[in-house]
Amino acid sequence: MPGEPTAPGPGSGGPHSSRLDPWIDQYAARTQGLAASQVRALFAVASRPEVVSLAGGMPYVAALPLEQLAEIAARVVKDRGNAALQYGSGQGDPCLREQILQVMAPAGIHARPDDVVVTAGSQLALDLVVRVFCDPGDVVLAEAPTYVTALSVFSSYQCDVVQVAMDSEGLVPQALREAIDLVRRQGKTIKLVYSIPSFHNPAGVTQGPARRAEILDVVRSAGLLLLEDDPYGLLGFDGSVPRAIRSDDSDGVLYLGTFSKTIASGLRVGWVVAPHGVREKLVLANETAMLCPSSYSQLTVSEYLATGAFFDQVKTFRELYRERRDALLESLTALMPPGTTWTEPAGGFYSWVTLPPGLDATAMLPRAVAALVAYVPGTGFFADGQGGGQLRLSYCFPDPERIREGVRRLAGVVEAELDLQDTFGDTLTNMRPFRPTGPTPDMV
Amino acid sequence: MPGEPTAPGPGSGGPHSSRLDPWIDQYAARTQGLAASQVRALFAVASRPEVVSLAGGMPYVAALPLEQLAEIAARVVKDRGNAALQYGSGQGDPCLREQILQVMAPAGIHARPDDVVVTAGSQLALDLVVRVFCDPGDVVLAEAPTYVTALSVFSSYQCDVVQVAMDSEGLVPQALREAIDLVRRQGKTIKLVYSIPSFHNPAGVTQGPARRAEILDVVRSAGLLLLEDDPYGLLGFDGSVPRAIRSDDSDGVLYLGTFSKTIASGLRVGWVVAPHGVREKLVLANETAMLCPSSYSQLTVSEYLATGAFFDQVKTFRELYRERRDALLESLTALMPPGTTWTEPAGGFYSWVTLPPGLDATAMLPRAVAALVAYVPGTGFFADGQGGGQLRLSYCFPDPERIREGVRRLAGVVEAELDLQDTFGDTLTNMRPFRPTGPTPDMV
Repeated sequence: MPGEPTAPGPGSGGPHSSRLDPWIDQYAARTQGLAASQVRALFAVASRPEVVSLAGGMPYVAALPLEQLAEIAARVVKDRGNAALQYGSGQGDPCLREQILQVMAPAGIHARPDDVVVTAGSQLALDLVVRVFCDPGDVVLAEAPTYVTALSVFSSYQCDVVQVAMDSEGLVPQALREAIDLVRRQGKTIKLVYSIPSFHNPAGVTQGPARRAEILDVVRSAGLLLLEDDPYGLLGFDGSVPRAIRSDDSDGVLYLGTFSKTIASGLRVGWVVAPHGVREKLVLANETAMLCPSSYSQLTVSEYLATGAFFDQVKTFRELYRERRDALLESLTALMPPGTTWTEPAGGFYSWVTLPPGLDATAMLPRAVAALVAYVPGTGFFADGQGGGQLRLSYCFPDPERIREGVRRLAGVVEAELDLQDTFGDTLTNMRPFRPTGPTPDMV
Repeated sequence: MPGEPTAPGPGSGGPHSSRLDPWIDQYAARTQGLAASQVRALFAVASRPEVVSLAGGMPYVAALPLEQLAEIAARVVKDRGNAALQYGSGQGDPCLREQILQVMAPAGIHARPDDVVVTAGSQLALDLVVRVFCDPGDVVLAEAPTYVTALSVFSSYQCDVVQVAMDSEGLVPQALREAIDLVRRQGKTIKLVYSIPSFHNPAGVTQGPARRAEILDVVRSAGLLLLEDDPYGLLGFDGSVPRAIRSDDSDGVLYLGTFSKTIASGLRVGWVVAPHGVREKLVLANETAMLCPSSYSQLTVSEYLATGAFFDQVKTFRELYRERRDALLESLTALMPPGTTWTEPAGGFYSWVTLPPGLDATAMLPRAVAALVAYVPGTGFFADGQGGGQLRLSYCFPDPERIREGVRRLAGVVEAELDLQDTFGDTLTNMRPFRPTGPTPDMV
């Protein structure tokens, strides 16, 4: 009541003071989008060493040249400590931004250092882009399925997410066109089209050149901004790098890149490439969020890039992940019961599995973890509870032998589910929708 | 118009396509709070070596044991690379959270590791707290003046900031009480009371124990949440550490801490201590913003803390900054024209200067930079254009000789302004309000 102090907090002695969280009535509306994952506890269990985790998108950092990186880290502190340990530019280190241009060159991107904003992982870039563009109720179009923590960001800024059908070449242009028309007929404002064109997370598919051109055409015709997320572009198993959509439109595409998958996720160094006006807003948003990205991490990356070892290391990763992808696909083919299907990724970290009809990947997860194998249930990649019969398998972290063992365990669990289904019908297995709006880092 | 696709972007060929920023109509309402600082260009000039910068709050990292830190950095990568280079917990490294309890112990804080959330600097903790609590139009109470980039955060989440009077002991309880009553009589919702009790930025004053108790009493009686920001608490020049307000209320106070001023700002490692329910929300918000804080930075801090050198290093910093504080105050006393006053900080980085009546610190800044000395004009620390006759001086970065030279130059500029005023009156000097909603990292 205006004019009279209200007392909602713990000092009030009022009706709320005995609640578990005395501040429960004080949160912002957006905080409702931050629900804890139902499977968080399960993933804590799944991180035990005896569990084969096909859940997390963790890069295999043990393949890095640790001795060399240790030397670089020491050099950064000893010789460049006054910069590495100090605040830096809110846009990121100028030299690193130059080097990032070289890292993007294989994807056909031409840009200037001033077009790049370095962020604490491309996750923060994604957060800042949505922060800068989206009011509550604005619509973001994204693939169905899409990256879990992108959904968390959209939700935390109270966006409506409309997910658009994919096929074996990713986002379907005609479906995108129809979704745009439908949303606009509803009187809603679309702010961003979010897409992962290369080695999609979680779908494991890649847009070909013609598909990319068509998607760009749809987006441009609608006057929309495309947010191209490209963490895996350098990790194509045939060694070729898909041409980024940003390469063909510097005004209408925001491009997200990261070193999390090609160097190390623990450094938290990513970036966004944006046209001038947008870039200015993103720098201000970056400064408001954390003043500046870590100089220590940035200079470590910069000195590593300066050694020239980056692209050779990417080749090492590519071969390592190809071998693991092969192990996954071979064992899926050999072991999974009929009726199970999966995508065959040409790069990146993930395959998207569809279970035999009637099975529920969320309901099955506790039994999988009990059988010492973990995956991410499909519903996590949708905003609306779809994906119950699907799951994501990551092959990036365990070695090929462990992957085969994991798939053997998973196949056993699926077979047991099918047996249950034969005996009792669908009722036992089709219970719990799953929506991890608060993902664990295990779920990148 | 609903039902008809609109085409606001660069693909439209519409009326906006020739604008500098074709996306200008697409930004979120909150993005209006992200205006670029008018003095940004000036600070770029001020970073030239011939300028004595009394503007930035940059810690003097050259006083760190760089050889030792270089060894630690190398060890973190070589011996703990699989953790340091990998994603980690969204709440922060558990061992570091234990160590943070020891760092907070001198301020009287008792907490459990689970109460701590590690963030990319306490700036991100501040951002996440506001994100979790504040809807557009919610009120945040803060000191007048207050930390520049806190104002940026409040503005970027569309909060109304109401600034409350300070005296030589900081925030005035009676003024706080009146502000709470007034805001509530206006029918508005107060979400946070933001305060920097120790060695205030920019005011350079400290709340005594009785003052803290009274402020806590006002906040608790009103049922409000106190956000206690404490970057400088360990840097008191008499060696004593003020008892944190959080030490006397674990349910109603959120406490922000950081290693930016006691180890190195370039690492971006800070934290927030929060009661259970709030802490859960902050972890989810942290994960949404950047998945997890940098493992590389966290383990570097953790290994450094494990050497036991931290509190000795803090003592070194304390003595170094005391010497610089003395240089500043002595030269202000010796050189500034009559009518100029300033605060005498007992710790931290800043003194708050009030110019003789009629002078405008913003209008004077270009002339100061031309005279090769820089400061931050007072209006930056207010949301409403107050502070025109005031400015902040930082003594943390230049050595005592440079500080004396800077004050000598500044005194000359102030004297020249007074001469101008004598000749022409106030009209020439009282022109431009200044509100740097987009601060440079120079302005922490």
